[in-house]
Amino acid sequence: MQEILEQIVTACRPYCSTGKVASYIPELSKADPFALGLALAGMDGKVYSAGDSDHPFTMQSIAKVVSLCLALMELGPELVFSKIGLESVADPFNSIFCLEKEGAFKPHNPFINSGSIVLASLLPFPDGDSKFEAILEMARSMTGNSTLNLNYDVFYSEKFTSDRNRSLAYFLKSTDSIEGDVEETLDIYFKQCSIEATAIDLAVMGATLAGNGRNPVTGEEVFPPEIAKIVRALMVTCGTYDGSGEFAVKVGLPAKSGVGGGIMATLPRRMGVAAYGPALDFRGNSAAGTKALEMLSEEADLRLF
Amino acid sequence: MQEILEQIVTACRPYCSTGKVASYIPELSKADPFALGLALAGMDGKVYSAGDSDHPFTMQSIAKVVSLCLALMELGPELVFSKIGLESVADPFNSIFCLEKEGAFKPHNPFINSGSIVLASLLPFPDGDSKFEAILEMARSMTGNSTLNLNYDVFYSEKFTSDRNRSLAYFLKSTDSIEGDVEETLDIYFKQCSIEATAIDLAVMGATLAGNGRNPVTGEEVFPPEIAKIVRALMVTCGTYDGSGEFAVKVGLPAKSGVGGGIMATLPRRMGVAAYGPALDFRGNSAAGTKALEMLSEEADLRLF
Amino acid sequence: MQEILEQIVTACRPYCSTGKVASYIPELSKADPFALGLALAGMDGKVYSAGDSDHPFTMQSIAKVVSLCLALMELGPELVFSKIGLESVADPFNSIFCLEKEGAFKPHNPFINSGSIVLASLLPFPDGDSKFEAILEMARSMTGNSTLNLNYDVFYSEKFTSDRNRSLAYFLKSTDSIEGDVEETLDIYFKQCSIEATAIDLAVMGATLAGNGRNPVTGEEVFPPEIAKIVRALMVTCGTYDGSGEFAVKVGLPAKSGVGGGIMATLPRRMGVAAYGPALDFRGNSAAGTKALEMLSEEADLRLF
Amino acid sequence: MQEILEQIVTACRPYCSTGKVASYIPELSKADPFALGLALAGMDGKVYSAGDSDHPFTMQSIAKVVSLCLALMELGPELVFSKIGLESVADPFNSIFCLEKEGAFKPHNPFINSGSIVLASLLPFPDGDSKFEAILEMARSMTGNSTLNLNYDVFYSEKFTSDRNRSLAYFLKSTDSIEGDVEETLDIYFKQCSIEATAIDLAVMGATLAGNGRNPVTGEEVFPPEIAKIVRALMVTCGTYDGSGEFAVKVGLPAKSGVGGGIMATLPRRMGVAAYGPALDFRGNSAAGTKALEMLSEEADLRLF
Repeated sequence: MQEILEQIVTACRPYCSTGKVASYIPELSKADPFALGLALAGMDGKVYSAGDSDHPFTMQSIAKVVSLCLALMELGPELVFSKIGLESVADPFNSIFCLEKEGAFKPHNPFINSGSIVLASLLPFPDGDSKFEAILEMARSMTGNSTLNLNYDVFYSEKFTSDRNRSLAYFLKSTDSIEGDVEETLDIYFKQCSIEATAIDLAVMGATLAGNGRNPVTGEEVFPPEIAKIVRALMVTCGTYDGSGEFAVKVGLPAKSGVGGGIMATLPRRMGVAAYGPALDFRGNSAAGTKALEMLSEEADLRLF
Repeated sequence: MQEILEQIVTACRPYCSTGKVASYIPELSKADPFALGLALAGMDGKVYSAGDSDHPFTMQSIAKVVSLCLALMELGPELVFSKIGLESVADPFNSIFCLEKEGAFKPHNPFINSGSIVLASLLPFPDGDSKFEAILEMARSMTGNSTLNLNYDVFYSEKFTSDRNRSLAYFLKSTDSIEGDVEETLDIYFKQCSIEATAIDLAVMGATLAGNGRNPVTGEEVFPPEIAKIVRALMVTCGTYDGSGEFAVKVGLPAKSGVGGGIMATLPRRMGVAAYGPALDFRGNSAAGTKALEMLSEEADLRLF
Repeated sequence: MQEILEQIVTACRPYCSTGKVASYIPELSKADPFALGLALAGMDGKVYSAGDSDHPFTMQSIAKVVSLCLALMELGPELVFSKIGLESVADPFNSIFCLEKEGAFKPHNPFINSGSIVLASLLPFPDGDSKFEAILEMARSMTGNSTLNLNYDVFYSEKFTSDRNRSLAYFLKSTDSIEGDVEETLDIYFKQCSIEATAIDLAVMGATLAGNGRNPVTGEEVFPPEIAKIVRALMVTCGTYDGSGEFAVKVGLPAKSGVGGGIMATLPRRMGVAAYGPALDFRGNSAAGTKALEMLSEEADLRLF
Repeated sequence: MQEILEQIVTACRPYCSTGKVASYIPELSKADPFALGLALAGMDGKVYSAGDSDHPFTMQSIAKVVSLCLALMELGPELVFSKIGLESVADPFNSIFCLEKEGAFKPHNPFINSGSIVLASLLPFPDGDSKFEAILEMARSMTGNSTLNLNYDVFYSEKFTSDRNRSLAYFLKSTDSIEGDVEETLDIYFKQCSIEATAIDLAVMGATLAGNGRNPVTGEEVFPPEIAKIVRALMVTCGTYDGSGEFAVKVGLPAKSGVGGGIMATLPRRMGVAAYGPALDFRGNSAAGTKALEMLSEEADLRLF
């Protein structure tokens, strides 16, 4: 397996040049566009990796999976899905349009920005700091990495430049979709986006989802199987922005991507896999990372559907 | 004329009960729903009025006419209309949707909230305070009322509750449609909305527009005829939100309404007329005020088109 | 006046090259892009004209004014406006989108294609032929030209190529917005678009609207003043597609344009004016014709608002 | 397994009353709302069934899977996906809106009406009859039922009432998205919708997809594995209209539903399952059928993701 991963990283590195590093958040634009890492974590707790698989980067939208797991644990699916839908959406990931045209102001799903901002507001903890602590703790349990932490440079970079998300949050406030202070809620959201992890961390996270909530490396029962099923299903239909259909055809695995360059995927009952490559395609998914997962899925016959 | 105005106020007061006082800004909801005033100012400087025509209320969207006049004076039509369109829009007045679906992020016209917020940002004065001072000065010149001022209760009420406008402003910031500090720009916008005037003031404002920029009461040349023509034309097509077509059919005059309950109308070369009635129809126009102007237009044969 | 018109035609002919002849209907593409005509009809029945003012062309959307006048006569405003709105719309003139997004399937106004197709269906005559006969008769009365007739080449060209309008009509059928046979209704619509007239005819039509329904050339009382008021008001807010705002600023007259190159305008109580120039701007309004009307409005001080 | 199926049919029959039989096609409204059937076909060619599993009904949208398989065989994925996207869409299944707002007029995916109409137009056969014959032949191969045929009553019922699809087709014609005669293309589409099958037939169809294109009952190699992978992936993300996300969470299987009441699902490498229940939920999916598949997925541990 180790060998396969290394061959794939070598074969896919040229695809880095087909993408572009995210530039709308200044701090993200500093990433090395030619970085590429690949990792795999099995149900036996064994981890394989190749390339820049231990290079830390911010989780960005992949953290939406973490906060969804936490919200489902703390509030239950019924409450969560009374506030947020579970359908995919054809519009780009930070669209206000897709909120407004429906009239109802219920974000389409927990993996678009508006959905995750509503989740941050809903979490049943006394203040913003304790909400973020709980998210970070969940991320540590899912990755089995207790040193996981926030990248403050990225956090402040997002906080001070993300007018689109700020617009989104005030819109959600105006429709009573979020409660409490808008800036406090945004801070939680920007912080979760700024949690730093490696491809190895994300492979273990995928393995925790594959293992129905049990982290195969640490043995911890992080959440019940019921939650793993819901989250995996949403990763299938909405995990890679408006490219979820193409990703399903090419890779055939439930996955979640982030503009930091990570993609975390899960093969139920068998393994987690993850890629890191900060050069993104036009939809915001890692260009070489997607290619690497496609090749891995093909060569190791991992395709789920 | 005095008599006609009084008859119309009496006849139209029952229509107050067909509308509702604006409640989304807490301070506005305190208005008396049964208030109704009507005023008319001729080219000879004579002013007639009836009912609650000296009752002060906040200009709200009518102030968009004032800031447009100022922007056209200071920046010229070419620059202004490179940043803002001059077409009407079928969607409600505070829509983000109507910004986003175009892709271009140029507000449709200066009389929707996004357009007026962009204008506030564009004004060529050193800071927010001097921008607002200039708007207030323009309002004083147009109404001939040098004591016109800001209602601070309404201003703070808007400032602390208007999440939709805040969302709009951050969206405009994210598309580089406004420059400078968002909250400072919003303060100018909320302040202009909170300028307090009476129906008599607004009738004189309408007469200034009718007089091609010359205030017939004070004799001041406030702006050149070119600007009066542009502003009157925009009042025809976009002055009463998405009810401009119906208003054109019923009243037949260029006009601008505000959710404070005012309607300011102009009959070129002949007079300004204004109504005040805070109970609004479903589109945000004064219910009894619209009826009163319709009746006045009919009885005094004021219909322009 | 004759001299002014001739000077304007000479001055504006170069603007023909800024536009393009409509090509989506094959027969229309045969028009001479450099043709330009201008005509004016006063309340005294006198007619002035210059350039290609006696060149026949098809009325296209200007016929929507004719069918609206007829429908208001035959059915009354209340019934007509229960089926069709009277608000302008920011989207292009043949949009299905603007029907569907509202949910209600009531066309925005009688001057967009869907509105006029609904009107054709509503007319209270036994069959398609008699409906069209009544429209043609109304056109003859408004223009005072009893020889006005259909251009069959254009009619068949539209009938066999206008898949967008056919799509629109079947959509309206599916929402029960039109009754009866779809192809029969489309035939009426395509026929009214194909009525051939000259700029002189349209100037008289404008004068009939200016004269509150009385044709100043023939003396015929074609429709009551009430109808003239409604139609003129709609011409102000929706007459020139999504360019109505700009047209109001530049020309300042109620008007209706067509992709055949005609523009018919009206100055209430004073005159009708019309231009012909088949080279269209990007919104579908005659490029040189708009310029000519702007210049005429300026030089003869015809601006209404 | 037989027993499990029978228990589920008994347990789920009450859910029939939560749905409504499709009424927009008159012929469909005659179905028995309390019918419920369930069938399963394994890789060994064994078929189990319970309830109304041999009751024939029209495939409706499930036929879109058949025509997609045929188009991929005949034209290859590259050509097909140059004309049709593969992303899900949040709007309802017969939306014109979702075509128009993009500007590009490429239907979102092959499982919305516009996508399937484009496919019908693309098929490389000389005329409409031979196109439909090829689709019918593909359906017979996938189901292993050589007697499968068209229900003419439903076909004519759709043909004469489906103004929305006719509107859609003329719109696609107007954007050059379909070639050839519109009515001929619609006939192919309406005919494929009207192919009659049973839940048993559909279970075998699902098994053919599960078997990578090999029908496990007849042993026929209907299409290559590559096509099975693409079609299954699209069934995951777009198979059950705008309810695909919820279906993924509840049932966890790639599936395609139709308004005739059928749902065809596939568990790769293991089996096909199908349900029939004509009472539909608000999204157009079989109410009791969805419930039955959810229960089966739970009890027999069939959940894929």
